[in-house]
Amino acid sequence: MRIVPAREFSLQREVEYGSPEQNATVKAIVQDVKHEGDAALLRYTEKLDRVALEASQLRVTDEEIQAAYSKVEASFVTAIQKAAHNIRVYHEKQRRTSWFDLQPDGTMLGQIIRPLRRVGVYVPGGKAAYPSSVLMNVIPAQVAGVPEIVMVTPPATGGKEGIDPYILVAAAEAGVKELYRVGGAQAIAALAYGTESIAPVDKICGPGNIYVALAKREVYGAVDIDSMAGPSEIVVLADDKADASYVAADLLSQAEHDEMASAILVTTSSSQAQAVADEVARQVAELPRRSIAQASIDQYGAIIVVDTIEEGIQVVNRLAPEHLEVMVEEPMQYLGLIENAGAIFLGAYSSEPVGDYLAGPNHIIPTNGTARYSSPVDVDDFIKKSSLIHYSKEALLANGATIMELARHEGLEGHARAIQIRLEKEGK
Amino acid sequence: MRIVPAREFSLQREVEYGSPEQNATVKAIVQDVKHEGDAALLRYTEKLDRVALEASQLRVTDEEIQAAYSKVEASFVTAIQKAAHNIRVYHEKQRRTSWFDLQPDGTMLGQIIRPLRRVGVYVPGGKAAYPSSVLMNVIPAQVAGVPEIVMVTPPATGGKEGIDPYILVAAAEAGVKELYRVGGAQAIAALAYGTESIAPVDKICGPGNIYVALAKREVYGAVDIDSMAGPSEIVVLADDKADASYVAADLLSQAEHDEMASAILVTTSSSQAQAVADEVARQVAELPRRSIAQASIDQYGAIIVVDTIEEGIQVVNRLAPEHLEVMVEEPMQYLGLIENAGAIFLGAYSSEPVGDYLAGPNHIIPTNGTARYSSPVDVDDFIKKSSLIHYSKEALLANGATIMELARHEGLEGHARAIQIRLEKEGK
Repeated sequence: MRIVPAREFSLQREVEYGSPEQNATVKAIVQDVKHEGDAALLRYTEKLDRVALEASQLRVTDEEIQAAYSKVEASFVTAIQKAAHNIRVYHEKQRRTSWFDLQPDGTMLGQIIRPLRRVGVYVPGGKAAYPSSVLMNVIPAQVAGVPEIVMVTPPATGGKEGIDPYILVAAAEAGVKELYRVGGAQAIAALAYGTESIAPVDKICGPGNIYVALAKREVYGAVDIDSMAGPSEIVVLADDKADASYVAADLLSQAEHDEMASAILVTTSSSQAQAVADEVARQVAELPRRSIAQASIDQYGAIIVVDTIEEGIQVVNRLAPEHLEVMVEEPMQYLGLIENAGAIFLGAYSSEPVGDYLAGPNHIIPTNGTARYSSPVDVDDFIKKSSLIHYSKEALLANGATIMELARHEGLEGHARAIQIRLEKEGK
Repeated sequence: MRIVPAREFSLQREVEYGSPEQNATVKAIVQDVKHEGDAALLRYTEKLDRVALEASQLRVTDEEIQAAYSKVEASFVTAIQKAAHNIRVYHEKQRRTSWFDLQPDGTMLGQIIRPLRRVGVYVPGGKAAYPSSVLMNVIPAQVAGVPEIVMVTPPATGGKEGIDPYILVAAAEAGVKELYRVGGAQAIAALAYGTESIAPVDKICGPGNIYVALAKREVYGAVDIDSMAGPSEIVVLADDKADASYVAADLLSQAEHDEMASAILVTTSSSQAQAVADEVARQVAELPRRSIAQASIDQYGAIIVVDTIEEGIQVVNRLAPEHLEVMVEEPMQYLGLIENAGAIFLGAYSSEPVGDYLAGPNHIIPTNGTARYSSPVDVDDFIKKSSLIHYSKEALLANGATIMELARHEGLEGHARAIQIRLEKEGK
């Protein structure tokens, strides 16, 4: 790993947003499904996924879901149940309640918190079919109280066998009861606009390939969508006491994701810097995904040596990483200085994969420096708020003149008259 | 107003997103300011706003702000102070606190809530320079705890006199201390990327013309932006007891905003439908902005007659209006049925302008049917959350095997090894 000065390093990478051809393809698919419904959905499924289906076969049956349990190891089911439990417990602590405030003059103001009515979760096929992502998208929606959560996934994620049984088990354990075997831009269009077989949703979330990402952007407005995820990142902030082999292993756990992933060590110790560089070189050679990890380290990895922990935290705040590990003595004392980081892991045993799979907090976290202004997925992403306003006659009489003054200053006489007509009727 | 069947009516209007030429102009301005800083900012200010400034003149001085107070009526200052107070009190009830949860095995999980560090508020010039919008954008950020709130506005919103003194007074009362006399796409670029005179922000909000809207979209990602506001809307749900003159006045208070605004009555009473139609015809003729209001009513206005209040609420939920007035007997009993509405006004005296100017809830509310999945601006729009994870040695030893099983199932051996290396060092 190269050792670079702090000032020269930035986490921002150019993320691909699709070619004009890909955009045109996606627009055509979305329009066709919007206007033709199931007919277009089935046509594109046959053309792109090479699976011929009838409309009645789109929905995954309960029997198919039950059968999936016999195709996976019992230990996998137990692991998923444990993860689902922890994720549920953590997200339940984010639940919010409607509130209101009353005044003696009869004024009542408040906020009504409601779940979205129907949410669609996309689960990609192939190697990106991660059971953990099913839990991380579905459970926050469920805890928010979303009554209808529907999942879509390409018809042959598990090869000729149909949908990957691990995905079906994760979906069932997360509580999904409505699943369709459709993928790609056509599935996104079906969720956004509805077809004869699939009712439209209010929000679409979940990862996907470039066609899925472009389709989500295309339907945004008709429905809400989640953020486009960038490549993964980790920053480890370590002093000279940290175990270099742990630091290196954690850096590599991000680097193996993707050649564009970024793994960065910020340390107060030059000898630690060298020790971690050596460990990374040693450990990377033993990884199955070593070519990906090595490319990530070469292009987007870095070691930054700083004079003090506080200076290191300034670097962290500037980078605003997705994942931050704080492996220094008494890490709690520095929390108050850390402004920008999507998820913060404290101490030697809080390795980043703890958060990816089991601890409970969401593993969908802002990337590419956006932790400066955005947050991990949570229950708030699946609610909506309505303001509530009740003014009594007394309150309107007492405040009407102020409202009219402000409205008239802005040249909105119609606004003023809506108040005035009431005051006049009350003889004011 | 035309009376239409419920099924035929939709609130969705095609909103303009700028011509290719406008997009190209904005891209060029943004790039120039990003790369040249103040030099480009001042050049575009001279070219587009016809005001020649030096960099040292960009910032509005304290003296200029103080002088503004002598140019506005004392009653305006009092009105703005009253509104600012109410908005502050309402938004303070939304403040959230960081939380954590502890387990006996040493696990600590939580969420850290932090304000954004620096927020930019755009205030348009000309007739759209609304003091009320200054309050509605600035105060939620302030209540969230944002330490730096900076405002930009075109250099001659008040004509040759410089910036509109009413805007300066509203800004001062809202607590803004850093103001710059720059507008248009060049101001958005300066906020996003920073110049020698203006430090970059984390989020930009506030209304503007099409160039401002396109520039915000262009810089999104480098900074967060607020939603693009569509044309305003009101739905009034009224029974036969509602006062037709109040209903008509409230419908017109939205219709006068904009020719694309939409004002809709949903009523259980045919005689009420006719009475409101007559009142609208009578009242619109007396409005200064009658041509705008009439165009809005003709194009996007409607009266929908339903059999029951419950059926009316189904129509409301489908339309998901920005503003909903419920003018029926005992309106509270229907609140539980109303799923989609940005702001809900209950009873005869809760006229919509009460919420626009004074009550306290935000007047920046989802439009164009997006209340199905989004919410009025509030304190949550100016915070970010970090997940906090601490696992003890004991917790990792107890859970390591589960984490490794899930990681290996997903083909991420590097994730598993980050756990394994720790377990092995502990002799497991």
